[in-house]
Amino acid sequence: MNRRNLKELSEAESLRRLAAVPFGRIVFTRQALPAIRPVNHVVVDGQIILRSGAGTIISAEVATWDTVVAYEVDELDADRHLGWSVVATGVARLVADPGEAARLGELVHPWVAGAMEQVISIRPEIVTGFELVP
Amino acid sequence: MNRRNLKELSEAESLRRLAAVPFGRIVFTRQALPAIRPVNHVVVDGQIILRSGAGTIISAEVATWDTVVAYEVDELDADRHLGWSVVATGVARLVADPGEAARLGELVHPWVAGAMEQVISIRPEIVTGFELVP
Repeated sequence: MNRRNLKELSEAESLRRLAAVPFGRIVFTRQALPAIRPVNHVVVDGQIILRSGAGTIISAEVATWDTVVAYEVDELDADRHLGWSVVATGVARLVADPGEAARLGELVHPWVAGAMEQVISIRPEIVTGFELVP
Repeated sequence: MNRRNLKELSEAESLRRLAAVPFGRIVFTRQALPAIRPVNHVVVDGQIILRSGAGTIISAEVATWDTVVAYEVDELDADRHLGWSVVATGVARLVADPGEAARLGELVHPWVAGAMEQVISIRPEIVTGFELVP
């Protein structure tokens, strides 16, 4: 198969694609090591909203204090070698206000069972994306 | 849709799944920020083998010195809310020996065009995985 070229996506297009899919991968540091976990998300008012349970790794490492994280979303087709990837980098914070947490939390639908009482918001500061084109 | 439970995968099963797919995501630190890039890989003798070009971010941040990275692979089905994810954490190093680099490099088939003269090997130290089950 012919190899593909990388076409950069604009910030607006990258955010549009990020908002159009139901899950991504949160990237953070855990005990000085790089860590990554798939999670479900929604985008509300330009912020990436996740849910997590107390006692999870994301809760311990990300939600406890304001932490810089990367959030990655992609759709890559192993048959056609086409697709795209978007990375948003920004500060993740626990949504502390109970009303706001309730409002945002009910928009996120985790696939994984269990209590997900914490709502985490990532404000993207740097957003990059690329597409594989023939 | 009913929410899923997480079933832990054994290290052997996690490595088997990682080896069975053609791409994943390398997670590292760049200028003190978490960073992630999708890449193609193969697994040879238990090591994850990638290719990169001089001048790329992976080359600058990962291949220049021995660096701890995470490598993530997943197959997640947004329609059925099923799938799995595997994360391997270990030291990435540039394969310096020209003969070994040539032997390993020709096993990796990047989808992206361009010179990919650097061969990077990740030796997994910690391997974890989970599956979403009904």
